[in-house]
Amino acid sequence: MSSESNESNTAANQFTRRELFPLAGKVAIGTAGLAAVSSASLAFGCGQGTEAEGHDGGSHMAAEVEHDWPWPYEMIDPEEAAALAYDNWYEKFCCYAVTSSILIPLQEKIGAPYTHFPVASTKWGHGGAVGWGTLCGTLTGVGIATGLIAGDEGERILNDVINWYARTELPIYVPAEPKTGIASISTSDSPLCHISVGKWMKEENVQFFSDARKERCARLSADVAIKTVELLNQWAGHSYTPVYGEQAKVHHVQMTAQNNCTECHGDAVPASPGA
Amino acid sequence: MSSESNESNTAANQFTRRELFPLAGKVAIGTAGLAAVSSASLAFGCGQGTEAEGHDGGSHMAAEVEHDWPWPYEMIDPEEAAALAYDNWYEKFCCYAVTSSILIPLQEKIGAPYTHFPVASTKWGHGGAVGWGTLCGTLTGVGIATGLIAGDEGERILNDVINWYARTELPIYVPAEPKTGIASISTSDSPLCHISVGKWMKEENVQFFSDARKERCARLSADVAIKTVELLNQWAGHSYTPVYGEQAKVHHVQMTAQNNCTECHGDAVPASPGA
Repeated sequence: MSSESNESNTAANQFTRRELFPLAGKVAIGTAGLAAVSSASLAFGCGQGTEAEGHDGGSHMAAEVEHDWPWPYEMIDPEEAAALAYDNWYEKFCCYAVTSSILIPLQEKIGAPYTHFPVASTKWGHGGAVGWGTLCGTLTGVGIATGLIAGDEGERILNDVINWYARTELPIYVPAEPKTGIASISTSDSPLCHISVGKWMKEENVQFFSDARKERCARLSADVAIKTVELLNQWAGHSYTPVYGEQAKVHHVQMTAQNNCTECHGDAVPASPGA
Repeated sequence: MSSESNESNTAANQFTRRELFPLAGKVAIGTAGLAAVSSASLAFGCGQGTEAEGHDGGSHMAAEVEHDWPWPYEMIDPEEAAALAYDNWYEKFCCYAVTSSILIPLQEKIGAPYTHFPVASTKWGHGGAVGWGTLCGTLTGVGIATGLIAGDEGERILNDVINWYARTELPIYVPAEPKTGIASISTSDSPLCHISVGKWMKEENVQFFSDARKERCARLSADVAIKTVELLNQWAGHSYTPVYGEQAKVHHVQMTAQNNCTECHGDAVPASPGA
């Protein structure tokens, strides 16, 4: 991700300053944050910034590897990816659902180097990392896949998919043969499993180990697969324009221009040493 | 991870019920949670459970791959991994710091299949996923590496590393040639970048783009590399015993036996539909 991302401003950035900074009177906002206000954010703002922040030369690079990287890409049918993701959620859950929906078609289309990567090794991302409720495993899967396919440019795609995930009423996907019927959609306002799943469960009034919750996560995996493949296909066709600003440069840590701080923190938003 | 993990009960589980369930009078706790009280948890409890929850057969498995998986492992010197992680943080930040500290020595020791994996593809995990402040990138790196090396057993290792990370005053590592001096240590009580970095910044009274914060994250990357390699070496030597229970089975989502709910939520802990 480059600092140019802060200047991106498209139809996706449709929020007023009041919507973005409801706590502006309470929380100090640095000039970097204000300058970049057009890049709306739900982010926690803990990013590390650009690669320029701390290079000290080329020490400790990887041993000689067998293939050029990023790996070659051929466009995938989003609907094919969606169907794979939905089915594969029921195999190894959310992270694998997304990685397999993208990488298995590429194993079939391209072969090596994709066939050197054990897609099942990504299962650990389930439930926000072996059940810790952190980053939704579907988004971990996007990171792993776009990292292999698009390298540093994949970070822009991941960033845009996370932004879309947090702002969109999900799930949208309806499988040809649903395993379970579900009624609800919800907006997470967060990339966290704990928040995303919890809000949907509340809406649907179901428990965690219900068939309905599993079905929601399977359909959501299909949605994330579609969105990611659409952006990858745009990127491969040279029509991809990142829409979302870079977290660390815009928000730092704890500073937070996120517009729903109090949702987690109540009125007791911790004081920030940064900003 | 298997359900047997709930029965693990070692010296690491040293918390009383009062410490674990300070909100027991306010939050409904399911029988599964109570039965597993010996498996102390800081988790958000969004896990997906075991593989048994939703299999429907072997559809959509990966195309034929080039290597057996999990990949072969040879023991790594934890101090070598630590030095690599510290240096490599300054190359591509936290997630790459950890993946490179483990996978580059294995590229050098074993060659293929490790040389088929572009370690730099894991950079995206920085700052809790391209700066969104979710799962600490060091832990994303542990997931990616242990997934390749140890498969499903790697999930137990990741789980234990996350638990250790959340409970330990970090950073511990002191590099031979520090780039910057730092004074503070802090316990995150969370695997989240937003929380972990923020608490340390408050302790050190520094801002996010300070040299001190960067140094802290570089040293913490070394700590995570050491812990992960120690557990991998135990696992390879058949002396590894998982110490931490499985999140989803113990806590479900939103139910939470985490003992610091109010730290994020204040007094307004959201009601849970589960449990």
